[in-house]
Amino acid sequence: MTRPIVTLMTDFGLKDPYVAEMKGVILGICPNAEIVDVSHEIEKFNIRMGAYVLASASPYFPVGTINVAVVDPRVGTERRGLCIKTARGYFIGPDNGVLVLAARTQGIKHVRAIKNAKFLLPNVSHTFHGRDVFAPIAAHLANGVNPSDIGPETRKMVIPEFAKVVKDKKRVRGEILRLDDFGNAVTNITEKDFEGLGVYRGSTLKVDGVQRRLRFCETYGEVEVGEPLALIGSHGYLEISVNQGDASENFRFKVGDKIAFCL
Amino acid sequence: MTRPIVTLMTDFGLKDPYVAEMKGVILGICPNAEIVDVSHEIEKFNIRMGAYVLASASPYFPVGTINVAVVDPRVGTERRGLCIKTARGYFIGPDNGVLVLAARTQGIKHVRAIKNAKFLLPNVSHTFHGRDVFAPIAAHLANGVNPSDIGPETRKMVIPEFAKVVKDKKRVRGEILRLDDFGNAVTNITEKDFEGLGVYRGSTLKVDGVQRRLRFCETYGEVEVGEPLALIGSHGYLEISVNQGDASENFRFKVGDKIAFCL
Amino acid sequence: MTRPIVTLMTDFGLKDPYVAEMKGVILGICPNAEIVDVSHEIEKFNIRMGAYVLASASPYFPVGTINVAVVDPRVGTERRGLCIKTARGYFIGPDNGVLVLAARTQGIKHVRAIKNAKFLLPNVSHTFHGRDVFAPIAAHLANGVNPSDIGPETRKMVIPEFAKVVKDKKRVRGEILRLDDFGNAVTNITEKDFEGLGVYRGSTLKVDGVQRRLRFCETYGEVEVGEPLALIGSHGYLEISVNQGDASENFRFKVGDKIAFCL
Repeated sequence: MTRPIVTLMTDFGLKDPYVAEMKGVILGICPNAEIVDVSHEIEKFNIRMGAYVLASASPYFPVGTINVAVVDPRVGTERRGLCIKTARGYFIGPDNGVLVLAARTQGIKHVRAIKNAKFLLPNVSHTFHGRDVFAPIAAHLANGVNPSDIGPETRKMVIPEFAKVVKDKKRVRGEILRLDDFGNAVTNITEKDFEGLGVYRGSTLKVDGVQRRLRFCETYGEVEVGEPLALIGSHGYLEISVNQGDASENFRFKVGDKIAFCL
Repeated sequence: MTRPIVTLMTDFGLKDPYVAEMKGVILGICPNAEIVDVSHEIEKFNIRMGAYVLASASPYFPVGTINVAVVDPRVGTERRGLCIKTARGYFIGPDNGVLVLAARTQGIKHVRAIKNAKFLLPNVSHTFHGRDVFAPIAAHLANGVNPSDIGPETRKMVIPEFAKVVKDKKRVRGEILRLDDFGNAVTNITEKDFEGLGVYRGSTLKVDGVQRRLRFCETYGEVEVGEPLALIGSHGYLEISVNQGDASENFRFKVGDKIAFCL
Repeated sequence: MTRPIVTLMTDFGLKDPYVAEMKGVILGICPNAEIVDVSHEIEKFNIRMGAYVLASASPYFPVGTINVAVVDPRVGTERRGLCIKTARGYFIGPDNGVLVLAARTQGIKHVRAIKNAKFLLPNVSHTFHGRDVFAPIAAHLANGVNPSDIGPETRKMVIPEFAKVVKDKKRVRGEILRLDDFGNAVTNITEKDFEGLGVYRGSTLKVDGVQRRLRFCETYGEVEVGEPLALIGSHGYLEISVNQGDASENFRFKVGDKIAFCL
């Protein structure tokens, strides 16, 4: 029998006992769970980075995977906990946008607010919902609990600025989501966002703040060494890169910079 | 069939092959083991930190869990290896106090000195008992070996200073175990240590070295923002905190500071 | 039924989603796999360090273990991917020497170049063969795929400088593989390399660049505190050490230094 997979992503680091406490709780409820770490080195409270890492990793897990993500600066306030069902699995975590990029990529079926105390630890602390709320919910889902028993469906969900791409007839506006180790500037824009704009591989794009047009390429090698380009990276997001160079340095990009593309 | 859980805590870090070697040994003896990392980023040789992290994490694991802890500055000397059976599982590691807080919390049933060479690796090195002694013992216990076959019962056990709480009729004396990321000063004193002293939630405590009385609270919010308080933290230890502030900075606490509470 | 063990070693670090993506791919193909991390903190592109860590950890895993190692500075070029079958399991990774020390220790049966696209991810990226090539190959082997279906046998394999030990009738020449945390200088020379030279425990060795003869010992304690010695470390390599001291500091060793031993 296949074991249910539960992935964990947090900003807790690996020094403290917090991640292990979540794993202990999960195995206590669902001894059969296969727990996989996505990353526990998300920058403290950096929801954007968490959202990006989760969106990058989750497509590679099998259908049915239950993903828990805890980057939760407002734990203990009235912010809600969410359980999002997608076409490929579940996303569980705080309602602050950390789940949104990953869940959207998979196609959201319904969103529930976590309510039913029966599926939480007996004493929910104000400081550690990863252990007291999200871990037990994930474990109960892994045991086959019906998501409708977890809480009511909701239509609202926090959509942070970094998860918003704005399109008009000529232009797609987004922002820089991440500067990776290779100096690529990853945006929050997907290929789908260009639909209807007449942008194809081989098009030349005008980019606000970049003093030159960029070729929209399939691979780095389509431009000369040292030349900038745009391409869809392996995780599905539009990147600005320099062939064998460092785009983030070249163009002085910072995470969060607004960026607009047009023909 | 449920898989036996073996947790690992060390000060080995994650760069070197040491933790993997322990896992290889365990899986070689008990292929069915579910190995969970508690932390491998304990400060090198910091027994107190190890004891605290283990005591924090272990209550969240299911009954039957076998916990291995290796913070072992005196490996290769005559210091003994212990196998402690508690009401909820096992603790395996060096006899230097690293196991003591966690084991005590669960209720110690008996303590054995590891002796039986049959359950160790064939060539026990002088430098790596985590791999050669503690990992195989844990794996054999996971396989159902009787703890009485591991070695003789012992009544002695190293109790380090940080594991000693002294009580008289009016006063409880302990020490600062850890300053956490939020500036809370976690002591080694549990609620039980106050029994018979007439201290309850709502009492006002006098603390040596703190120039004011502290309210013994249930939650941070019972005092004004910026005000200090005492409370039992989520891991069962008395903490000195400042509501939305930093107690360790305010009172210049250091780990190891002696501290006494009275009415 | 025993679960097939797949170990992972990379230089990806634990911050980014890369390791999790490999695990997701493996579990998608072989849900039954037991994945164990060897280390993901190998220094970026440091093939020698990766080779050493893999050779240290892999002997402790059970027969049948499938080891994946990704330290791969030339990913995306024409460098080949290898699947090495040994007497004890498999080693999968780039053909750059990262597998060689570990595989040799176990006895190489045959080496195959990874070819068969059927066992790779549908779209192999130019930058991430860990996920797109090596992880799926490992998972298919874990499922029982015949290695002969993976690609053709090959007789060539990159043997880097650090994996070469040169012997003549009087002398063994190798190099410093690693300076460990305790100041031991680990060489790439094994006891077997001394065969036929008349070197035994108790012999006195002359070492190029070390201004004194070293006793070839069984344990550190055979020489005075502060005195240098040579011994076979717990991972099978000849080490130069100082009893309770720091050999790498004493002799100003650097990783990669050539070193020759003779009677």
